[in-house]
Amino acid sequence: MSSTYIARLNQLTQQKKTAALVGLDPRFDQLPEEIVKKAKANHSDPNEMVAAAFEEFCKRLIDVVAPLVPAVKPQAAFYEEWGPAGSRTLCRVIQYARKQGLLVICDGKRNDIGSTATAYAHAYLAGSDPEASPWGADALTVNPYMGSDTLEPFIKVAKERGAGLYVLVRTSNPGSGRFQNLEADGKPIYEHVAAEVEAFASQAELSEGYSSIGAVVGATYPAELEALRTQMPHVPFLVPGYGSQGGTSADVASAFDTGGLGALINSSRGINFAYNKPVYQEKFGPDQWEEAVHQATLDMIDDLATHTPVKALG
Amino acid sequence: MSSTYIARLNQLTQQKKTAALVGLDPRFDQLPEEIVKKAKANHSDPNEMVAAAFEEFCKRLIDVVAPLVPAVKPQAAFYEEWGPAGSRTLCRVIQYARKQGLLVICDGKRNDIGSTATAYAHAYLAGSDPEASPWGADALTVNPYMGSDTLEPFIKVAKERGAGLYVLVRTSNPGSGRFQNLEADGKPIYEHVAAEVEAFASQAELSEGYSSIGAVVGATYPAELEALRTQMPHVPFLVPGYGSQGGTSADVASAFDTGGLGALINSSRGINFAYNKPVYQEKFGPDQWEEAVHQATLDMIDDLATHTPVKALG
Repeated sequence: MSSTYIARLNQLTQQKKTAALVGLDPRFDQLPEEIVKKAKANHSDPNEMVAAAFEEFCKRLIDVVAPLVPAVKPQAAFYEEWGPAGSRTLCRVIQYARKQGLLVICDGKRNDIGSTATAYAHAYLAGSDPEASPWGADALTVNPYMGSDTLEPFIKVAKERGAGLYVLVRTSNPGSGRFQNLEADGKPIYEHVAAEVEAFASQAELSEGYSSIGAVVGATYPAELEALRTQMPHVPFLVPGYGSQGGTSADVASAFDTGGLGALINSSRGINFAYNKPVYQEKFGPDQWEEAVHQATLDMIDDLATHTPVKALG
Repeated sequence: MSSTYIARLNQLTQQKKTAALVGLDPRFDQLPEEIVKKAKANHSDPNEMVAAAFEEFCKRLIDVVAPLVPAVKPQAAFYEEWGPAGSRTLCRVIQYARKQGLLVICDGKRNDIGSTATAYAHAYLAGSDPEASPWGADALTVNPYMGSDTLEPFIKVAKERGAGLYVLVRTSNPGSGRFQNLEADGKPIYEHVAAEVEAFASQAELSEGYSSIGAVVGATYPAELEALRTQMPHVPFLVPGYGSQGGTSADVASAFDTGGLGALINSSRGINFAYNKPVYQEKFGPDQWEEAVHQATLDMIDDLATHTPVKALG
């Protein structure tokens, strides 16, 4: 489909009736044993072995969640940790997820100056045509520290390709305030970043009032999340920190408009490795890890729905 | 050799008698024709073709500069632009450069929260043992926006492995001041970052007064560079912006101590594609691109030496 990222996101969010975003964060020491066994039998090189295990795990996970959610978010670090073999798996996982009808946000938190930023944008942002870039993602997370002129090349490529961006504004980690909360001209740095992102977003093509230029705003600071929603009316949010990091559905409710649009709420560990969590462990054995993923995704969707109803499409 | 990053860097800087750092930033449209021709003859897949051309170009470039400089800095974006094939070439280029006795700083500007930062550190930081990580770099550039707690996992892994870090403090791009120059508590944000980096550095193992925890400080803001040198006495600098971006050897002189240590000055385009520059074009034809690289590197070393003599080892 040829369209803007935000139009595709809004459509899929309404079709699936949820803003749940599933992180694809494979960790070798938490993989189901059957997958590890098979990978070990087929590969002697340790990086190739892990990469093969990740590929099978992620593809089967995608098969489970594809009918349920609009989008997935692979975290680049967990793939790059295993070298070029891991990077190749990241690429295959992105392409497989898109084939299953999911939007893919590559969580790479990239940035650099001028033409280097353009190279990153060309690498990751495929947008409406999955073949437009080698990695093939619909959207990419980017870091603003180097300045607005380093965001512009990403915005230009995203616009050309119908791709999306999520700029780090207020992150979910305990120490995120160290620099983000420093006050300049009467407001914290993250609000300066927010103002810049809103300025870019308000000039871009909108769908349901939102642009394809988004912001990362953590669930772990609900008061700031609420204030940022007001300050960035045209900016779709990517909200990490729900679940394992402590954010609740009540904490993230303010990210949404009355139609249930305006944000994606991410859960990674809580879904990927649900079969290891006490609440699912009793019901699902280790060989039923996909059933645990399925149940954990449904439970997240239900939990979010108590605060954020998404209207049916049309 | 088992040692800290900074000990290896100081030793090589003194041996080579220069702080020149050669960026490895291949761009397909600027490659010598002979390399492109050969790659096209051998590869039908466009990404594989470019990756093969990059690999040959970078390896031959490394052969030229290895006897002359202490370190090289591949820019990850230019490799990732060509997908997994490009990432594989990045890995091979890093490993080849180390085999030729060079230190390798991977310019990835990575960062993320907690365990994700650890994954990036495990991926890129090999330190004193090139086989300790799949990508195998001596050092990595990292972005501080997410807070000091996201730098700590990198510092921990760097310490364990004898690897180095360069934290973005004041970048060389025209718009770097947009957030970095905002004033909080009477000083710009980049000085808050600088204070944090100096605090980490002063607690780390030192060599010639410097730690393995460095800072990226652009050559294009010489007054700020000079002030930051005073504020970060234990922090080795990685200085981009010399040459093509406009910084001169006089601009970067304040980064060094009287022994010529304390900084690496990077040049990428000016050396990689010297054969396309008017000053070298007349003397060296397109088939003499390696001679142009050689001459441009010698010229940079001479230029830096006018302001920053490096004492001979011992």
